[in-house]
Amino acid sequence: MLKRYLPIINWLSVYNRHALASDMVAAIIVTIMLIPQSLAYAMLAGLPPEVGLYASILPLLTYTLFGTSRTLSVGPVAVISLMTAAAVGNLALEGSSEYLVAAIALAFISGMMLVVMGLLKLGILANFLSHPVISGFITASGLLIAASQLQHLLGISASGHNLLDILQAVAANIQNTNLLTLAIGGSAVWFLFWSRKGFAPLLTRCGLSPHVAALVSKTGPVLAVISSILVVWAADLAQQGVHIVGSIPAGLPAFTLPHFDSEHWQQLLVSALFISLVGFVESVSVAQTLAAKRRQRIEPNQELIGLGAANIGSALAGGFPVTGGFSRSVVNFDAGAQTPAAGAFTALGIALAALFLTPLLFFLPQATLAATIIVAVLSLIDLGAIKRTWQYSRSDFSAMLVTILLTLTQGVEMGIIAGVSLSLLLFLHRTSTPHSAVVGLVPGTEHFRNIDRHQVITLPHLVTLRMDESLYFANARHLEDRIYALIVQQPSVKHLILMCPAVNLIDASALESLEAINHRLEDSGVMFHLSEMKGPVMDRLQKSHFLEQLSGQVFLSQFEAWQALQTAPGAQHQAPS
Amino acid sequence: MLKRYLPIINWLSVYNRHALASDMVAAIIVTIMLIPQSLAYAMLAGLPPEVGLYASILPLLTYTLFGTSRTLSVGPVAVISLMTAAAVGNLALEGSSEYLVAAIALAFISGMMLVVMGLLKLGILANFLSHPVISGFITASGLLIAASQLQHLLGISASGHNLLDILQAVAANIQNTNLLTLAIGGSAVWFLFWSRKGFAPLLTRCGLSPHVAALVSKTGPVLAVISSILVVWAADLAQQGVHIVGSIPAGLPAFTLPHFDSEHWQQLLVSALFISLVGFVESVSVAQTLAAKRRQRIEPNQELIGLGAANIGSALAGGFPVTGGFSRSVVNFDAGAQTPAAGAFTALGIALAALFLTPLLFFLPQATLAATIIVAVLSLIDLGAIKRTWQYSRSDFSAMLVTILLTLTQGVEMGIIAGVSLSLLLFLHRTSTPHSAVVGLVPGTEHFRNIDRHQVITLPHLVTLRMDESLYFANARHLEDRIYALIVQQPSVKHLILMCPAVNLIDASALESLEAINHRLEDSGVMFHLSEMKGPVMDRLQKSHFLEQLSGQVFLSQFEAWQALQTAPGAQHQAPS
Repeated sequence: MLKRYLPIINWLSVYNRHALASDMVAAIIVTIMLIPQSLAYAMLAGLPPEVGLYASILPLLTYTLFGTSRTLSVGPVAVISLMTAAAVGNLALEGSSEYLVAAIALAFISGMMLVVMGLLKLGILANFLSHPVISGFITASGLLIAASQLQHLLGISASGHNLLDILQAVAANIQNTNLLTLAIGGSAVWFLFWSRKGFAPLLTRCGLSPHVAALVSKTGPVLAVISSILVVWAADLAQQGVHIVGSIPAGLPAFTLPHFDSEHWQQLLVSALFISLVGFVESVSVAQTLAAKRRQRIEPNQELIGLGAANIGSALAGGFPVTGGFSRSVVNFDAGAQTPAAGAFTALGIALAALFLTPLLFFLPQATLAATIIVAVLSLIDLGAIKRTWQYSRSDFSAMLVTILLTLTQGVEMGIIAGVSLSLLLFLHRTSTPHSAVVGLVPGTEHFRNIDRHQVITLPHLVTLRMDESLYFANARHLEDRIYALIVQQPSVKHLILMCPAVNLIDASALESLEAINHRLEDSGVMFHLSEMKGPVMDRLQKSHFLEQLSGQVFLSQFEAWQALQTAPGAQHQAPS
Repeated sequence: MLKRYLPIINWLSVYNRHALASDMVAAIIVTIMLIPQSLAYAMLAGLPPEVGLYASILPLLTYTLFGTSRTLSVGPVAVISLMTAAAVGNLALEGSSEYLVAAIALAFISGMMLVVMGLLKLGILANFLSHPVISGFITASGLLIAASQLQHLLGISASGHNLLDILQAVAANIQNTNLLTLAIGGSAVWFLFWSRKGFAPLLTRCGLSPHVAALVSKTGPVLAVISSILVVWAADLAQQGVHIVGSIPAGLPAFTLPHFDSEHWQQLLVSALFISLVGFVESVSVAQTLAAKRRQRIEPNQELIGLGAANIGSALAGGFPVTGGFSRSVVNFDAGAQTPAAGAFTALGIALAALFLTPLLFFLPQATLAATIIVAVLSLIDLGAIKRTWQYSRSDFSAMLVTILLTLTQGVEMGIIAGVSLSLLLFLHRTSTPHSAVVGLVPGTEHFRNIDRHQVITLPHLVTLRMDESLYFANARHLEDRIYALIVQQPSVKHLILMCPAVNLIDASALESLEAINHRLEDSGVMFHLSEMKGPVMDRLQKSHFLEQLSGQVFLSQFEAWQALQTAPGAQHQAPS
């Protein structure tokens, strides 16, 4: 029981020097990655930079206690920061103290929701976010985020609530572009893109092993930060209109209880739910991918508790919503992290940074942070997924497209709501008009196949319909229509067999329909039979009175039904059609 | 094309003297039933009695042109009248001219919606109303309607928006009961209940044939009306506090265009949608039952157009929403109606009543109409359905219970919304955690069965999982969890076969999951195979790159897979487990 809710017990008891060494190496590399990311994502969320650091200490420690993934790196991530900005921006003005209070409350509410969902084993709720919807949402968010950073890259003021607003604001103010800012931001973007592809090969040529070179190349963002700080400081560019981060308070975050305001909290509930679900889905999918590579397992409902604890931790330290990040977790894994202790060591690294490094960040240009964000989020935009979905399924594609368009034009929450609703409607639509086939006997076998596709034997007094879907309220009437149409078309029919090998469920509505079909066929002088019913479905039918009322029989196999009914009065073989 | 949208062409060309005679007999009986019902349902909807007559003339004529059921009797019905009162009561005060205007607008909007749904072939939307939800809703509406009529039966004033409010108001005013009113109402209720069971046998004993006796017994409500009018007139009871219908304007309804008010119409949209769907579901189900008895067919999408035309007709004649009524349609059928012409003749009968009978209705006590309503709706309350649903399926029962409770306490619209939402969530929940089984070979056969239920042969290096559900976003992650757990439990496994005889669909989310499973199994050194995939599902998979990436093979049958993989290196038979 304790092991279930405190997974740390499982690995701490077997922790050894080898794991310690591996975890520490991974922690150093992740810390170097996380410092600029935490500052940048705080800026993206509309918060002071130190809040990003605060959200990268306590959450990592609490996740270490409660999380089940060995390699997940928890902390601020781009999409959740965008969602935070959207949610909090509705309630307070960016830069105001109410804004920070609302962001902290959001992290707290989201954390509580995740913990409650975990305790109630509601991880299943995340299944409502279908893959096309999540993928479309992430792509659209990436576009929105990249667009929102253009103002920092250009040194102008241009924000908005949707893509069009942002681009219009940029176009209207582009003549105010600060060329020095653009030069710094542009070179940072170029360097960061280059460092992803070209840094590692360069380091290999300098004699590093490919593995070490790949890890060292992850320091690209930190190098960009250091060099741009040096340039701004040396050339005194802050005086020439280059926006800098400025003074960041040094020290560890103070322990704060979130300020309770029932009206504000109610307004944040829906946003907190979406942030929780999106964060959970993203986090679990990367955790699962990494766990499978080492034949480890994660426990989704305990992950909810782990991520919930991380968000509550973030709130108590004055931070904003966090989750498991994709790129940092992959780096953590590749750097050899063995246990969640790597996360605890990363927290230690960020704590040291908060204590001692903040004065050095005074001259950090905002354009460099914007460049970090842009390069990070452009990798979220997955046009390949859009194309693959288009090729695979038009209905999945339409859910994806609606999500993308509504996220870009109406905001993140409308995008998700519309995408989820449309996926559900499309699924219901698909199952409400299921595939079905009239089947006949394949000569010389006991197999029955679609009369439209195969040469089969049929009998004039007997028709068999195979339904390829569970029978439930959304398709119950379709079934009735299909059967009545069949009977009207073939007045010679005296026996109708419903063949059910693919029927996994018959709900109360479908049962009523079967009863209605039975009565109506009886009124028309047709006997109604069932064949190849599954065990659990039969068990349930036996709880109703349907089987007593059934005018015909229930046959275990379709061939048995055929044999029993072919000798019925008036039966005559027809040549294969 | 014309025949499709004007079904009257199909039957009018073969109309003959025999059908004419049958239709006229049926029309006379239905007219006698409909006169008191139309007055009573107008009162239930909070409208003047003549509006009930107006809603029983033009709608029947338009349905005759556009409807596909030969025997459906269109007009005011109890549940739709209750829903009208709830919707219009939000906008205007009962008795005001705005109230009537809103009721007319509601009929018009609902009619337009039905026609549009019919043209777009959206009859499928009605499938969202599952049987337990509709059944629970009708039962709860019946209770609400019966309670709302208590005030007329007692001669007091006691109305409310939910069951508790109504019963409290009745309890608070019961000391004002008018005993004469109660005597009239009580005897009417007694007589109407008796006439359902005891009238026909009495007539048979008087020498009528059983069929004629059954039809004549339907005149019970009209006899109650006539005798209570005579009593009130003779004893001058109106002077002693018995509420009477009073003067009803004589004559046919004037042609009126509904008054357009965009704000009011927007507020009526949701109510109109619910009224349309509930009316359609009820009407189609009775029409289908009756059509099947004569091996006729109805066309649901054309029925939408027919009912839409009826409601537009009602609005143009100053009436309120109508639909096909259950009891009147059954009487129409039993009385021998052959074609929709019976409806046209009924409209003629009601028109004659509106022209000449209204002065005779002056002394009709409201208590008699209330008794008519109560006796009619108590037959809607179906406690047996509640019990059957409880026995058959707990999840269907919970949807039903929520619908009943919310309809009684929060009103008709909240009841439907909650019931529909819960049914959808429960269906998604059921399909999101589908049944699956690890299977092995039944010795001496080519069949594979659940290893937990049957004596089967398994191999240590091979595991086969059979999924009993379509794979889609709500269960894609469940599939992943199931497979990873299997692999972690059995480290000796080198081949995993997913057996898919019951998989009718693989959506884009499930495809991503299959790809992820394939990659992760490969990372763990396990080959991933598929067997017994259905044709349409395979066709779709071939549009993706999944089959190229698949580490294993796709086998037509599970036995083929077993034969191919049992000889893989390291394979050893295990005794049946």
